[in-house]
Amino acid sequence: MRRVAVVGIGMTKIGISDKSQIEMFSEAAMEAINNSAIGPKDIQALFMGNYLGDFEEGQMNMAPMCASELGMTYDVPSVRVEGACASGSVGIREAYIWVASGFCDIVLAGGTERASAMGTSLATRTFAMGSDSRYESFCGATFPGVFAMIARLYSAKYGIPMEKLKEKMAMVAVKNHKNGVKNPLAQFQKEITVDTVLNSFMVADPLQLFDCCPFSDGAAAIVLASEEVAKRLTDKPVYIMGVGQGSAGPLYRQRDITRIRAREAAAAQAYKMAGLSPEDIDVCELHDCFTIAEILAYEGLGFFDFGKGIQALENGETEITGRIAVNPSGGLKAKGHPIGATGAAQAYEIVKQLRGECGGRQVQGAKFGMTDTLGGDLATSVNIIYGV
Amino acid sequence: MRRVAVVGIGMTKIGISDKSQIEMFSEAAMEAINNSAIGPKDIQALFMGNYLGDFEEGQMNMAPMCASELGMTYDVPSVRVEGACASGSVGIREAYIWVASGFCDIVLAGGTERASAMGTSLATRTFAMGSDSRYESFCGATFPGVFAMIARLYSAKYGIPMEKLKEKMAMVAVKNHKNGVKNPLAQFQKEITVDTVLNSFMVADPLQLFDCCPFSDGAAAIVLASEEVAKRLTDKPVYIMGVGQGSAGPLYRQRDITRIRAREAAAAQAYKMAGLSPEDIDVCELHDCFTIAEILAYEGLGFFDFGKGIQALENGETEITGRIAVNPSGGLKAKGHPIGATGAAQAYEIVKQLRGECGGRQVQGAKFGMTDTLGGDLATSVNIIYGV
Repeated sequence: MRRVAVVGIGMTKIGISDKSQIEMFSEAAMEAINNSAIGPKDIQALFMGNYLGDFEEGQMNMAPMCASELGMTYDVPSVRVEGACASGSVGIREAYIWVASGFCDIVLAGGTERASAMGTSLATRTFAMGSDSRYESFCGATFPGVFAMIARLYSAKYGIPMEKLKEKMAMVAVKNHKNGVKNPLAQFQKEITVDTVLNSFMVADPLQLFDCCPFSDGAAAIVLASEEVAKRLTDKPVYIMGVGQGSAGPLYRQRDITRIRAREAAAAQAYKMAGLSPEDIDVCELHDCFTIAEILAYEGLGFFDFGKGIQALENGETEITGRIAVNPSGGLKAKGHPIGATGAAQAYEIVKQLRGECGGRQVQGAKFGMTDTLGGDLATSVNIIYGV
Repeated sequence: MRRVAVVGIGMTKIGISDKSQIEMFSEAAMEAINNSAIGPKDIQALFMGNYLGDFEEGQMNMAPMCASELGMTYDVPSVRVEGACASGSVGIREAYIWVASGFCDIVLAGGTERASAMGTSLATRTFAMGSDSRYESFCGATFPGVFAMIARLYSAKYGIPMEKLKEKMAMVAVKNHKNGVKNPLAQFQKEITVDTVLNSFMVADPLQLFDCCPFSDGAAAIVLASEEVAKRLTDKPVYIMGVGQGSAGPLYRQRDITRIRAREAAAAQAYKMAGLSPEDIDVCELHDCFTIAEILAYEGLGFFDFGKGIQALENGETEITGRIAVNPSGGLKAKGHPIGATGAAQAYEIVKQLRGECGGRQVQGAKFGMTDTLGGDLATSVNIIYGV
């Protein structure tokens, strides 16, 4: 297997857009293509994530539409992948193997979503189709509901009083909003306080509005190339060191959902392939769809012991200047969560960090970075480790 | 790149089912797994096609649900791919590369769809989301409408009077229904005549009801393995000789839609990789979503010259006993069209033919077989060549 590098990245502003998903993807992809010093005709395949283009815009089979919009010709395969909120990362992992295998030299990957179009209430119900439809989602197990249950279990399992847990969860939102201020592409560029969170309206007890990430519009794209091609195209190749993906079924088949087993499996695969361990990671963009989710990820990715996530947070260890910078982009919470694009947006940030191009939110001397993307009810998890 | 073989196949009865898509997939997959002399825990990845599980059953992110249903563990990546009606074949091509690259030894691929649930009229409108939503599908360009336009263009381009073309198109349906009679898993196992077609109600002039394939429920699955593993598992490995996939944008960007350029590109890739030419193919399962579509495929795949498709049909060259057996399973027309499963159902038939297990519809001495799957408005095309 050949080494694979990222040679170009692009991302739209995340937020609320009146552009179509195809237009947003084209914008991000053209930026990534220009950033790669190639042209659209050099691309040999496209893999893109999208979650609910049909409900959002009546648009399925979006991949060839995007390929065509970019001027890519008939003989370029274009594939849409869907793994709920992890779709973008699933696409990057597919793109990786086509280059690593030697089959392609240059491949475009990314994702797009216009998640705001439905409005939050309808979107919450619609997006819950990523849960099990037979026994779970129809009885009200939306994503806020599921993560609220997880927060309650977490509180009980580790003996952390709910008042205290809520305050610590709020600190996740405070940190990520603080980071988002320094990210010109973030949806929210405004600091908040613990009180902002605790005074916001209740969504699914104990999760309040500011414990929840928004539904966002946006797209992101990256260009992958073989090591040989990458060295011709850029002085700053960022390598994919390891990839991992895990799966889990409906919640009723998962045990102790304070542990996300699909993530633990995916991360283990990625670490093993990269020959790295959690201590080696300098910066991580992880799936903070809810504040409790960030705490779970600290532990599931091996950065901190199980049950110790909130201590790490309290000690500032996940700040940009901490032991491991978590969500310097602002994360899903502040940068925004353009569902099918989220994994690619995470990759955008990590590559930018490893290139040292992040200005006020730069993690100094970052050598290894990781993305962590979760889809459905803890059902799809993708972890990718990048390095320079 | 390693050689990759099919070591097991499974398919449900195609038709109208009261099982869920996950249940149907499990049924097909367990048959494929048992047919492979392995267990579910031997599978290292799952790639599955599904088109509209959300509209049909409120179920997205179906891949990990299916993996879980089959007893596959947390560390198995599971990916849903969507390329409209070509989704199943897109999944097989992805599964292929993960084995060919040496990354996995045994991978499950397939597809599932419960396309009948919405009823034909609603499904026609809903499934049209595979077309361009910005300029085309919203103004009524459903799939029957698009293929009706193609039939008219074909008639004009080659100077074939419409009355004559309609009679020849009807012969496609007659042939495929005749083949379907010999396929116990086919949706329709009943012969029809040219008059049946010409007397059926008009759907989109000149296409009548019997020019159109049905919307079907069903699932199909295949197990792929490296050559080394395959030799341990089976005495009858069927090899994947070549894969190809092409893309095209909205119809307004395609020229002369009697030529499906994405298919021509995909087939060229597959032939080149296999080191074979159209004359080498003994049996082909191709995308006869409408009768005119089968004629286009004869030409686009290089079996017969452009404009000569109906002559080949008339001469019986595409009968099971003809120069090249086309759709011995009954094709989409008679076997049925379980959208996201169709590509896998085609693979099921080709593998069965190359193994010599097709009984009354067996193509004698078949050595090389091809699948041809089309998605959207000629937008995604996948061709895979199998050989023994």
